[in-house]
Order: sequence, then structure tokens, then C-alpha cells
Amino acid sequence: MDEFSFISELLSPLSGPEGLGLLDDAALLTPREGYDLVLTKDSLIESVHFPTGQYGVNTAHKLLRSNLSDLAAKGAKPIGYLLSLALPLPHQISKDELCEFAKGLEEVQSQYGFKLFGGDTTSGSNKLVISATLIGEVPTGQMVKRGGANIGDDIWVSGTIGDAYIGLKLALGDEHPTRDAVSNTFWLEAYHKPEPRLALIDTLREYASASLDVSDGLIADISHMAKASNCGARIKIDDIPLSQHTQKWLNQQADSYGTLKTLMTAGDDYEVVFSAAKSSRDFINQAAKELNIRLTKIGKITDVKNNVQVIGRNGETVSFTKTGYNHFSKR
Amino acid sequence: MDEFSFISELLSPLSGPEGLGLLDDAALLTPREGYDLVLTKDSLIESVHFPTGQYGVNTAHKLLRSNLSDLAAKGAKPIGYLLSLALPLPHQISKDELCEFAKGLEEVQSQYGFKLFGGDTTSGSNKLVISATLIGEVPTGQMVKRGGANIGDDIWVSGTIGDAYIGLKLALGDEHPTRDAVSNTFWLEAYHKPEPRLALIDTLREYASASLDVSDGLIADISHMAKASNCGARIKIDDIPLSQHTQKWLNQQADSYGTLKTLMTAGDDYEVVFSAAKSSRDFINQAAKELNIRLTKIGKITDVKNNVQVIGRNGETVSFTKTGYNHFSKR
Repeated sequence: MDEFSFISELLSPLSGPEGLGLLDDAALLTPREGYDLVLTKDSLIESVHFPTGQYGVNTAHKLLRSNLSDLAAKGAKPIGYLLSLALPLPHQISKDELCEFAKGLEEVQSQYGFKLFGGDTTSGSNKLVISATLIGEVPTGQMVKRGGANIGDDIWVSGTIGDAYIGLKLALGDEHPTRDAVSNTFWLEAYHKPEPRLALIDTLREYASASLDVSDGLIADISHMAKASNCGARIKIDDIPLSQHTQKWLNQQADSYGTLKTLMTAGDDYEVVFSAAKSSRDFINQAAKELNIRLTKIGKITDVKNNVQVIGRNGETVSFTKTGYNHFSKR
Repeated sequence: MDEFSFISELLSPLSGPEGLGLLDDAALLTPREGYDLVLTKDSLIESVHFPTGQYGVNTAHKLLRSNLSDLAAKGAKPIGYLLSLALPLPHQISKDELCEFAKGLEEVQSQYGFKLFGGDTTSGSNKLVISATLIGEVPTGQMVKRGGANIGDDIWVSGTIGDAYIGLKLALGDEHPTRDAVSNTFWLEAYHKPEPRLALIDTLREYASASLDVSDGLIADISHMAKASNCGARIKIDDIPLSQHTQKWLNQQADSYGTLKTLMTAGDDYEVVFSAAKSSRDFINQAAKELNIRLTKIGKITDVKNNVQVIGRNGETVSFTKTGYNHFSKR
């Protein structure tokens, strides 16, 4: 399958009118009046963000879902995306794998209602490197920024933390599957197909003073929010929401408290962490009920600039040597 | 230099207000009334699109200029871009190289007047993979598409063809520098810093029925235009514009005619090839004079669908086994 048939047979059916049939060098977007555009771009590298050799459905899901998660945190509705594929040379990707990849894109597009606008395909690296630029829209002036938190605001997080980390361990074979098949599936799903919290966009635009998604690690991302807001934060370990599966797994770990701290810095959760005024507390709890999405108050925005204080089980301050992922510091 | 200081120290100064200081997960763009947005995304892979280990100024130039070339061909003015860097692990990129890369971005940005909106940085491949999504604007409804050519239209190309190919050979050491230092510099410049034809955007919007940039190869790109327009094309080899440097170099080749054909399929020219009605001929020649940009009529749009006929020196039809670059067919 050559580059041009890959585009015309597999990608073109995924494109919206803005994509001009993927026949052009560019996409053409007529912005809707009354809306701002929110643009976000995230890349995935084989063996860093997804397991080596995994070129199919799951990788397409991960790519789009991780980018959608950024839009969700900003209160934006996705309308389309541009896709870059840098294919590896040594391992030839088969037509079947390309079909599976396209199928994954299609699944996410139809679930969340947006289209392919364009992009490019190249090859020559030893790893698959994929990148997407997502385009979303928000009513003018309503994007929720990372830097809007106010001292005294509550800090909230959606869903549960740490499930994707266990899923990653399972996917890599670093962790043996537990005897509970339902848990194993749950964790793998959390890793491969994180749920972008697009259902929360109205709530976030209405109540959140600042918001971002948890991709680097909960502690790191809260510190990003605090820093951008010129504030600090204080959160309680015991308030971190965990799934039943993960709580049970944690209880079985030799160092369950240490492992919990790892989960708080592992990233890949793609939940939304946001700040909101105290006065919005009841409304947020109400929205959580209506949307059937767990929203948990885990801390406070403080006036101690650039400081994220984590309060442990016995009231002690817990320190972290690593708060999240930093792509260059590994070297 | 870690990921976050790379962003805050080197990239943040390049960002416009839409980039929100690169502190957020996304860029925020309030579209101007009366304008469409044109979006294009192109990636470069080390050793495929730029020489191995070349991480500095030239690579930044190539990335932005090749994307700007797409905008130019659409008649769009650049306003900003998102940047993805997937850094290689084995070869550690030094702070100096990152500084040089950022300097290159800055040079192109200030030359053409646009800003960094956002992006992401990762690492883990064996090669540097960089990708940019450029955002341009055109007055509503005026983007020049690839598929608008009409039978009988003239085919035009800007600048000269083949210079970047010789530059590539020189950069890779596949070709010895000639004794003429001025020529060597000219070719290397054409390869490293192609001139995106943004000066032509008004002319293209006014007169071009179809347009795209020459990146895959002149013949391949004309055939893309013909196909998208549901037409064919006929061009004359002797009408292909060549620089004095390249003409002289060609004359010295053992098989100068064969080499000329190679130049027509080599790509990387980043010139604009466009179609326009016969009646626009004088206006286009006039614009060329005013803008001091060479515009050459090289052929015609025909009714022989999907067929690009190349007429050789003796009136014969020349056939090509390879019309341009196809990223998957190499494997």
C-alpha cells in the first residue's frame, strides 16, 4: 500500500468538508461567528507512549483521546484535526495495521463528532511517531485557562487516578495480570482508551477558574496550574479518588502507601484537574450527579507561590523526588 | 536543559498572545471576521528531509519554510504555528543546538511576520522528527485550491527548478562542490532555506485557478493538480526555468538531458506551480516584473484526464518511471 492509496482509500473517508477530500496541501476552515478556536498538538512515540509494534486501533485511540483530553480541559468542543504519521522503516507496517489504525480513528471521530482535516505522512525513523493537531471551538472568551486559579479556590479532579499506570504495566508485561479479569480489562482500557472528559466542557466553562488535563502526573499538573496562576496548592493524599479495582490492588502491594504516591505522579490519567470557587461547590456536585461523572474535591489553592504541598495520611507533608514526566530529564 | 526550561527560555519568547505564554495545553485563536483559516501540517525526519545530526538553524528554517510554501500556494498569509519536536535519545541534543534551532525559528518568524502558538516536545526515537502545523488566513472564499484548473489554462511555475536537488547532493557529500563558490552557496541556500513564495499570494488569489507548491517533484505535483482538477497537463521540457548556476552545471553533466529529467522529479523546490486562464497572461507577467519574481509559463491544462504529457527537446513524448517522491514506496 503506497502513501497515496493510504490517503485516498483509508484516510479520505474520514475527512470532513474542511479537508477538501485530502487532495489539497491544506485544510480550509471557515470559523463560526461567536466562537474562538482552541488548538492543541500532541505527539506519541512508539515505545514511549504506546507499546513497541502496537500500530493498530489502540494507538489511534490513544492519539486522539489524549489530544481531546486537552480540548476538554479547556472547555472546547472538537471540530477536526490534522494528522502526521512518521512511519518506521525497519518494521514495515502492513496494510492490515494501517486499516486498523484508520478504524481506530474512525471510532473516536464518530464517538465525539469531529472530522479529519488534513495532515501528512512520511517515513524514515526507527519508531512510529504520530502527531495530531486538534481544533476545537468555544464561545468567544470562554476558554478555561491553566492560569486562572484564585487563592482559596477548591481543587477538583474528575474520575480516578492511577488506573492507566497499572494498565501500562500490564500492557508492557511489567505486571502480571491479577486473577480478576474484570480489573485487568478495566486497567488496560484506562491505558489504551482514556475517556476524554468532553462531557464536562459546559461545567468547566461555567465553574472552573483554571483547568488542565492530567497527562504528566497529578502532582506535576497541579503544580503547572499553581505556577501559571501565580499561586500554590495543597492537596490531601487520602482525598485522591481511586477506582475500586485500583484500591484493591493497592491494598495488596507490599508498600501500598509508596505505590499510591507513584500513582499520583505517573500521568497518563487524562482526567481533568480544575480549580473553582468555594461557592460553586454545590453546583459542581450537582453537575457530577447529572453527568454521572465522579468529581472529587482534593485540595485548595494557596498563597504559597509555586509550592504544591501534599498532606499525607498522618498529617505530615509528603515530598516527591519526581512529580511527573519530563521528556528531556531522562537523558 | 530540561523540557520545561527549553520551553520557557527558548520557545516562550517566540510566542504570540495566542500561545498564552506556552503555559497552557492549548492555543487560543480569535478568528478575524471576513477571513477563512488555512491549516497545513508537514513533518521532517532526520536523514530523510535534512542531513543526519543537523539540528540547528537550517533545520528550523526548512521546517517552517516548507510549511509556509504550502500556505503561499493557497494564497494565505501565515499568522502562527504549532510545533512538535520528537527528540532523538541516542544523540543528545545540546543546549547550543536547541538555541540554534530556536534562533532559526525566530529568523523565519520575523522575516514573514507570524508567531508560535504552541505545540509539544517529546523524545524517544532514533531520529529527530519535527512537525509544524501552520495557520494562515485568506479573505473568505478566496483560498486557491489544487483542483480548480480548467482545460486550456496555462501552467506557470515560480522561480527555478532543480537548485535544491543539487544543494541536497552537496549537503550530503554525494556531489563535489564546483569550483564556483557562488554557485555552491546558491544551491545550498536553495536546499536549506527555500524561499516560500508568500510574495505571490495576492497574485495567486487574483489569477490562479489552481495552485500547489513543488515539494514532491515538478512532474508529480503537476499531476496532483491535474488529477484534482479532473484534467490532464502538457508541459515542455525546454520551458522549465533553470537558474544560470544549474544550467551551467547541467551542461557539464555527461548525460545532461537525463539529469534535467531528474531535476524535474526531485522535489524540494518549494516553488509554486499554478494554472491560470490565458486571458491573465499579461497580468501575471506584469506581476512578475513588479514583484521581481520569475514566473514562467511551462505548459497547458488539457482534457486528457490524469495524464501529464511531457514534450522533449525533439518534440517526442518523454516518459518518467518516477515522477516524484512517495514515502511508502521506498520500502
